Amino acid sequence: MTDDRPIGVFDSGVGGLTVLKSLMHAFPQEKFVYIGDTARLPYGGKSLETIHLYLEQNLQALLDKNVKLLVVACNSASSALMDDDGVFADQYKGIPLYNVIEPGCRSALAASGTQSISVIGTRATVEAKSYVKTIRRLNPSAVVAQQACPLLVPLIEEGWIEDPLTNLVLHRYLSTFQATDSDALVLGCTHYPILVESIKRVAGLKFKIITSGEAMAAQLNEDFTSGRLIKNSGSAPFLGSLEIFMTDLHPFVHRLCKRVLGTDTLLERKCTDVLKLEL
Amino acid sequence: MTDDRPIGVFDSGVGGLTVLKSLMHAFPQEKFVYIGDTARLPYGGKSLETIHLYLEQNLQALLDKNVKLLVVACNSASSALMDDDGVFADQYKGIPLYNVIEPGCRSALAASGTQSISVIGTRATVEAKSYVKTIRRLNPSAVVAQQACPLLVPLIEEGWIEDPLTNLVLHRYLSTFQATDSDALVLGCTHYPILVESIKRVAGLKFKIITSGEAMAAQLNEDFTSGRLIKNSGSAPFLGSLEIFMTDLHPFVHRLCKRVLGTDTLLERKCTDVLKLEL
Repeated sequence: MTDDRPIGVFDSGVGGLTVLKSLMHAFPQEKFVYIGDTARLPYGGKSLETIHLYLEQNLQALLDKNVKLLVVACNSASSALMDDDGVFADQYKGIPLYNVIEPGCRSALAASGTQSISVIGTRATVEAKSYVKTIRRLNPSAVVAQQACPLLVPLIEEGWIEDPLTNLVLHRYLSTFQATDSDALVLGCTHYPILVESIKRVAGLKFKIITSGEAMAAQLNEDFTSGRLIKNSGSAPFLGSLEIFMTDLHPFVHRLCKRVLGTDTLLERKCTDVLKLEL
Repeated sequence: MTDDRPIGVFDSGVGGLTVLKSLMHAFPQEKFVYIGDTARLPYGGKSLETIHLYLEQNLQALLDKNVKLLVVACNSASSALMDDDGVFADQYKGIPLYNVIEPGCRSALAASGTQSISVIGTRATVEAKSYVKTIRRLNPSAVVAQQACPLLVPLIEEGWIEDPLTNLVLHRYLSTFQATDSDALVLGCTHYPILVESIKRVAGLKFKIITSGEAMAAQLNEDFTSGRLIKNSGSAPFLGSLEIFMTDLHPFVHRLCKRVLGTDTLLERKCTDVLKLEL
């Protein structure tokens, strides 16, 4: 049995492209549709009510593209999918729905010997405590420390990737975790994998680094194997397709698309277009 | 003759509160209505078409509050008010309209002996070249150098105001101007006045610092004197009123409101509420 419908990936902007890239590497035979809500990014500083409104518009737009599963590659939107008991919605209008938080938490607990997990993210993600709640739900005796790192996305956008100043900022942020016995560090923001080499160097050898893209690929792989999800009929090398929609276009969107997907030959299949939502 | 209608101030978020604060100090007898479009900030990375759509919704909301003049305290929205000849719209539906760019340019040229002006702003403001075009329109022989400083707003939001790391970032950004004979530095972003002491220290004594709020107050004062604008009937001490509306509320909005207006007793008159636009 095969299912040739595409995989839908949603993010508030371009950070989710790191998740898309991991999924394209893991599942080269699949088709992908990506929507970035660049007209209204970032979601981090917005109320839950407003995020819900935007999220539903974007998920519906992906359903209109006839996707077989929905990946929410945005931490703020993923937090909004969590109910009062800390459990995430796992479907939307009958279509399997994945948030970016739970796979990262599962990967971290699987990678950690001490069950003491460190999490970095935007201020909104840290304030929402969604990683803390999810890790504790999966293992009530786990210890979680978290640190908001609001300067990392602007440093990435500035292009100061291998830069002493960025290392100074990372030192300040990551020093929080040095006194703990944590051995796994979750990059709880989809932009952060772009800094992964600097983060590894500053964090030191004791940390296993968990990225959202790799964790999501592991989760989907498990669900393809269990039968919850059905692969398409294509076979590697890549026979799939990729469509990228943004709700607003601006040169920086192209620049970041190129930075994230640029060295990848799959970029040639990229089609960036504007999708009209009810703005 | 008096005109008791309030002054309307619009910004994409909370940065424009620095302009509001300057105007409240300069015109303590006036009433003010402020709208921050926090549901959709920042405007910097958005297309001109989208900014126009949002701008019109917000200006109309201020007109619905019966304002006597409109201040656009957002650089990206102000750029959108400029026509192909570099001239700004100066009214909207018959109401006097002020952009945040031209007063800063006028103040800088008035303050500068060398007519060589330095401008710092967000990446969007620098790319739009609106300060360069406006200064050259006002004095075609003026020299303008500009530098995008995308890390400054996140550093301010992080609260690293008097901080060695912020000084390092400022050193890197402002070093651009050291080789010029510029003697006036325009803070082309409404958040930057919060860093004004560090900026003065790093830039050095040769620079006169121009803030949008003081420049706007000077421009309105001129127009109250010339008769283009009519003052209200109140007299100092403060008899006016202040209403602050945001299109979305979030704790960070309250924090930044307090940081900017917090030490001011006028804060007590503040009423923060959500204004519903067509989101």
